Amino acid sequence: MPRPQKILAITGGVGGAKLALGLSKILGPEQVLFAVNVADDFTHLGLHISPDIDSLTYALAQENNQELGWGRAGETWQFIDTLGSLGGEDWFRLGDKDMALHTRRSQLLGQGATLTEATAEIIQRMGIKHTVAPVSDDPIRTVVQSDIGELAFQHYFVREQCAPAVSGFRFDGVHSATLNPVIAAWLTDCDGIIICPSNPFVSVAPVIEVHGFLEAASHIPTVAVSPIVAGTAIKGPAAKMMQELNIPASAVAVAEHYQRHYPGLLNGFVIDESDGESLDAIALPTVATQSVMKSLKDRIALAERCLAFFSELPT
Amino acid sequence: MPRPQKILAITGGVGGAKLALGLSKILGPEQVLFAVNVADDFTHLGLHISPDIDSLTYALAQENNQELGWGRAGETWQFIDTLGSLGGEDWFRLGDKDMALHTRRSQLLGQGATLTEATAEIIQRMGIKHTVAPVSDDPIRTVVQSDIGELAFQHYFVREQCAPAVSGFRFDGVHSATLNPVIAAWLTDCDGIIICPSNPFVSVAPVIEVHGFLEAASHIPTVAVSPIVAGTAIKGPAAKMMQELNIPASAVAVAEHYQRHYPGLLNGFVIDESDGESLDAIALPTVATQSVMKSLKDRIALAERCLAFFSELPT
Repeated sequence: MPRPQKILAITGGVGGAKLALGLSKILGPEQVLFAVNVADDFTHLGLHISPDIDSLTYALAQENNQELGWGRAGETWQFIDTLGSLGGEDWFRLGDKDMALHTRRSQLLGQGATLTEATAEIIQRMGIKHTVAPVSDDPIRTVVQSDIGELAFQHYFVREQCAPAVSGFRFDGVHSATLNPVIAAWLTDCDGIIICPSNPFVSVAPVIEVHGFLEAASHIPTVAVSPIVAGTAIKGPAAKMMQELNIPASAVAVAEHYQRHYPGLLNGFVIDESDGESLDAIALPTVATQSVMKSLKDRIALAERCLAFFSELPT
Repeated sequence: MPRPQKILAITGGVGGAKLALGLSKILGPEQVLFAVNVADDFTHLGLHISPDIDSLTYALAQENNQELGWGRAGETWQFIDTLGSLGGEDWFRLGDKDMALHTRRSQLLGQGATLTEATAEIIQRMGIKHTVAPVSDDPIRTVVQSDIGELAFQHYFVREQCAPAVSGFRFDGVHSATLNPVIAAWLTDCDGIIICPSNPFVSVAPVIEVHGFLEAASHIPTVAVSPIVAGTAIKGPAAKMMQELNIPASAVAVAEHYQRHYPGLLNGFVIDESDGESLDAIALPTVATQSVMKSLKDRIALAERCLAFFSELPT
């Protein structure tokens, strides 16, 4: 296959955003569009919070907090600490700078903007030239089915710190949501899809399960990067979830998961070089490369490797 | 008259709150109730902001910002600076800690609490034992009539920095608002009212003009402290307003204003020692004392002087 000229990159939060930054350094705004999960979104303290859009925004602006691994650089916590002292909810650690983004988004939404429009206004102000497209402007909400009952995603992820054992997921609204027209239009002429190393269960699934996505993507070469490296997730609860779902926490099992649930979607798979011995166990064209991204150089190198990989795929 | 045993203190923002703190150091929660202006309240960025309640709250908690002269001690500005960078409104300088109070209040109000209940919850968390009573739980909103048209109070006060020349004021809702039942009950057996050195036009007026207040107060000895000292306001635009309203900016004129607009309300008047030569020009029992409060000791001394003054008034 030829090296693609126009890419759709699917991403969830912090992990996927690393590769997205790498792609943004190689490909211009006309060459790559970011399709982002919104199923982690929630309303909290009256604000519309979009954790994955914000993780990507901070990453692309290179304003992500590298010490914490989440949130915005140079963050302070006066608001949330004071709110706690006044008896308010402080389990979701909203930084003072981060609060401004949620407030601005909520204000724009309140004025009638779509999430796509509000996101465009905010990222432009942060100096980002690429398009960050929520997979849908309609609400999609992940419900985590767990041993303590059903939990809204942020209650599972932040409040309960992923402690409950999961048994499944439900994406309320995913089948009635309209695929973002910006993404639908991009899919008509893009020639490659990269699924960034995001959680397959709660970040990628609620993107690709939006009505019309898989059909529109069916003729486009698609490559996924494993978020599982050497049996663990670089970021987030993916490995823990797989164990609880009785799936081996391995890159091989991630590939099998995609093939079983979305047959025909993937044309290629990218695993880490440390999992090189698994190459033969994956029933897809697979490349092993350095996929752990510590530096900006690592991000760009993986992005370049993914792009080059398309031309190694059989036609 | 005897020295009163149970006081209602009327206050607006920062200026009045200084005397309120002094009173709180002498009188227990059963001996003084604070009735606070709510006509400066407004909704901003989706939050219910009550500037006068907050000024009093921070003063009583001794958490007021002494460097700025407004807001909370130890404040930072990451939120509002970031909001401005994202294209949001930043003319109202909401500090990071201050934001927490507005968020908590808004959340409590959203859950069905009255402003009185929300205030009680917040001040209890800040360690304040006295009762801070909004004059009403109903909305009262000051409209400033000016040479650039009608302005909502905070637009005049903060956004326009009091630059427009005022020609009058309107307090939307003041006649239909229900006097806070906590204040109404207190008025049935309190034996003294102190009007703190707050702006007579925009802080005191929208408290005492609430339906039923003046009638309930008519038999209670009442003393007002001039917010004008030596021709200027210690805090805020009172002196500038008086000039624009063609009233001399003087303590004498403040006394005359109260007597003309609220005949019979005042039994005594307190002016600063620097205005001592005006004593004979005021047609009310008047005392000149140090009314400029720089230290906590000054606040307590003025509070004590006001209380002692009642026993010097003719029966």
